[in-house]
Amino acid sequence: MNYKMITYNIGRILLVEAILLVLPAIVSIIYDDGMLISFAVTIAALTATGLFATRKKPDNRSIYAKEGYVIVAFTWVLMSLFGALPFTLSGHIPSFIDAFFETVSGFTTTGSTILKNVEALPKSLLFWRSFTHWIGGMGILVFVIAIMPKTENSSMHVMRAEVPGPTVGKLVSKLGASARILYGIYGGLSAIQVILLLAGGMPVFDSIVSTFATAGTGGFGILNNSIEGYNSLYAEMVIAVFMLIFGINFNLYYLFLIRRFKQAFRSEELRWYLGIVAGSVLIIALSLITSKHSVGESFRYSFFQVASIITTTGFSSTDFGKWPIIAQVILVFLMFVGACAGSTGGGIKVSRLVILVKSGMRDIKKAINPRSIETVKVDKQTVEEPVVKSVSVFFATYIIVLAVSALIVSLDGRDLTTTFTSVIACIGNIGPGLGAVGPTGNFAHFSILSKIVLSFDMLAGRLELIPMLMIFTPYAWSKKYN
Amino acid sequence: MNYKMITYNIGRILLVEAILLVLPAIVSIIYDDGMLISFAVTIAALTATGLFATRKKPDNRSIYAKEGYVIVAFTWVLMSLFGALPFTLSGHIPSFIDAFFETVSGFTTTGSTILKNVEALPKSLLFWRSFTHWIGGMGILVFVIAIMPKTENSSMHVMRAEVPGPTVGKLVSKLGASARILYGIYGGLSAIQVILLLAGGMPVFDSIVSTFATAGTGGFGILNNSIEGYNSLYAEMVIAVFMLIFGINFNLYYLFLIRRFKQAFRSEELRWYLGIVAGSVLIIALSLITSKHSVGESFRYSFFQVASIITTTGFSSTDFGKWPIIAQVILVFLMFVGACAGSTGGGIKVSRLVILVKSGMRDIKKAINPRSIETVKVDKQTVEEPVVKSVSVFFATYIIVLAVSALIVSLDGRDLTTTFTSVIACIGNIGPGLGAVGPTGNFAHFSILSKIVLSFDMLAGRLELIPMLMIFTPYAWSKKYN
Repeated sequence: MNYKMITYNIGRILLVEAILLVLPAIVSIIYDDGMLISFAVTIAALTATGLFATRKKPDNRSIYAKEGYVIVAFTWVLMSLFGALPFTLSGHIPSFIDAFFETVSGFTTTGSTILKNVEALPKSLLFWRSFTHWIGGMGILVFVIAIMPKTENSSMHVMRAEVPGPTVGKLVSKLGASARILYGIYGGLSAIQVILLLAGGMPVFDSIVSTFATAGTGGFGILNNSIEGYNSLYAEMVIAVFMLIFGINFNLYYLFLIRRFKQAFRSEELRWYLGIVAGSVLIIALSLITSKHSVGESFRYSFFQVASIITTTGFSSTDFGKWPIIAQVILVFLMFVGACAGSTGGGIKVSRLVILVKSGMRDIKKAINPRSIETVKVDKQTVEEPVVKSVSVFFATYIIVLAVSALIVSLDGRDLTTTFTSVIACIGNIGPGLGAVGPTGNFAHFSILSKIVLSFDMLAGRLELIPMLMIFTPYAWSKKYN
Repeated sequence: MNYKMITYNIGRILLVEAILLVLPAIVSIIYDDGMLISFAVTIAALTATGLFATRKKPDNRSIYAKEGYVIVAFTWVLMSLFGALPFTLSGHIPSFIDAFFETVSGFTTTGSTILKNVEALPKSLLFWRSFTHWIGGMGILVFVIAIMPKTENSSMHVMRAEVPGPTVGKLVSKLGASARILYGIYGGLSAIQVILLLAGGMPVFDSIVSTFATAGTGGFGILNNSIEGYNSLYAEMVIAVFMLIFGINFNLYYLFLIRRFKQAFRSEELRWYLGIVAGSVLIIALSLITSKHSVGESFRYSFFQVASIITTTGFSSTDFGKWPIIAQVILVFLMFVGACAGSTGGGIKVSRLVILVKSGMRDIKKAINPRSIETVKVDKQTVEEPVVKSVSVFFATYIIVLAVSALIVSLDGRDLTTTFTSVIACIGNIGPGLGAVGPTGNFAHFSILSKIVLSFDMLAGRLELIPMLMIFTPYAWSKKYN
């Protein structure tokens, strides 16, 4: 393990965080909300730590997959530890573990909150809280699209198979170029959303922070009752459509940019994703109609909530905890499904589920004709067996992490629905669950142990499991293999 | 598809069912409970159908995996359809779908019931109801140990890898010999349990039917409050120990018979199974102690319930729906885990989970050192990659079937806990769930659609998914491949 390179790289990213914190500091100056000192202290701490860690360039600059995972895991944890400082220093979230939970929830674009009264927060803290979503969304795009596919055993190999024609590797041979294209698309789409929200009459500040939360598929709002508070059909529809847009594989936008529309639309994952959305919206709307909502209202709520949950954003436009059970069951499933691979959304990802379903069907066919040669195909291309296996193992690991976490959280003695959906919402980076963690609830009531476990789950889910699990694997630290 | 051989074989098994029904008919004569006509009519119907189906031996006697699966699937469905007749003919379960559900629950050794007042049933019907468990347990042993491993793509390949030394294939080269050994062990263990229960003062009838339910890991009782009704520590302990015994891979008993004790005890699945039982008993007992139960009572309830749930029997000795949440969460997990492969228990099976956990750990190791060669090992033997993949795919398919079923059952509008645990309890062949289907509840309130889906789940879970899913696969019936 090249510890020097790990320290050096983490140090550089902490310096970037220091620079990013200048933005909320400026917001604090604009609104004169007295938060400047808290941000200044945090920036100072980050700068000092960052400069110390990068004080000399390591001689041995080789980094392998292992080091990459360790850097990713520690970066997210450290960014959250430092990012939590302004909340605690200012006294607005006195408990540091609460502030850490909130910041992890921000960076991982989860959107679960421990705040009972969001509106009490000063503007600059609200800005920072939502900005972490935007930073996290960008971070995960680079991580998933540019870093993950380079390591041999990654389940995200999937993505290569998905995008027909130019693979990620070919398009963008260098990490830098790849990242720049992604930043461009991400920033461009965000700008369009801000403009559209402004056009609908939403205040500037609200438009910007709502866009941060949408682009990162995070879900932190600045009103206690989320998007419902705006009571604007226009804003809801803009946000719903953009949530769906940010839940699509960013490779497809690249194909758009280079005018390969046909290829983009041929993506099987995209069609499944849109199909699941359409089916879920329809069924939930029907269930709402039968429970005394008007047709228009039913489709409005249903469309918004399906978009919010499948993209793992977690905004709410109404209290879906009161919806018919079938609607709630569908929402729970959408929490597992998640968005497309290579998007800012969380969850298991549509492409993985497509491969799981197809490999299940393949196994049935194999049982029927043992000697037949059946392969799993996505986008008319064969998915290689190691990928099929690694997707299945990912799924199993996901469920096992979920199970162990639920076991620990159950020590808190909350009801089954709250216990399970809090873990599902965190590991899937959704935000709200059902029961006490539903759209009108929050995560404040959990014990410190549960908050730590749920923070771990948010990070594990966000980083596609391996990095976070790895740092707890003795094998990774064993001298023998390093 | 060799339809003639399929019909012929199913016909023969229906004739066996006719013979088996003579036993409850005799019970009916002994107790003179007026059920004789219902049994006689059923026996007549079975005999007529069986004789018609077997009226001439097919010329082409070749059977492939495909035909095997179809025979298995239809046999279980038809046996349940005919087996339900006595309940409906006698008027004790007027609705045929209810009677069908109850009989499927019996043959699949699930133990979920639609009966609100079991004690109102005549003795011979109670006998038949519990006897279906014993028949089903025997059927599944032969199916899983003798038939499944012969087909190439079966997840139960696992078992071969598990039993070190003599594989099933070597031990018992002919299906007949294999079945006879299994029947011997099964019958012998059942006889010992009956004797032990009698020794504790349980009435003859109760001892026999309780043993039927224990041996098949079914869980139908003849008292409204299950085993709690006997209020006997001795009976509870005998039943708990025997539930655990019937949840162990029967291959190990064969190793015992041929005095290879060391080899039997070296089984990794056995050690995990006992470890999970011990851990769960301890945690649940501690949670009960902290909620005002005495130490002795806590361990008594905990041990019985853990044994009952992990073996998927489903007996209850108290209303665990009122236990602390952590205890309920553990029980839900045990419902997924299930018993050992090659036992009469249901669920995902301990050996599959061991392979899933190990393959998850292997993938993490592979991520750390992409070029390292890591294999999944069980009992110090390498589990071949196709087996690892097929186990992962089995798990994914299990969850997908569960999800789709929960979606349909949620149409009934029951709460989330009831909706999910009813499906988990049926697909895992456990019996009771939580909420309205908890130990004090029953499945009567579900709609006909839900009862059909839950019946399908019981069969799908019992037959290791493939046979039941296959009969709904157009590919299986396509002329092109037959």
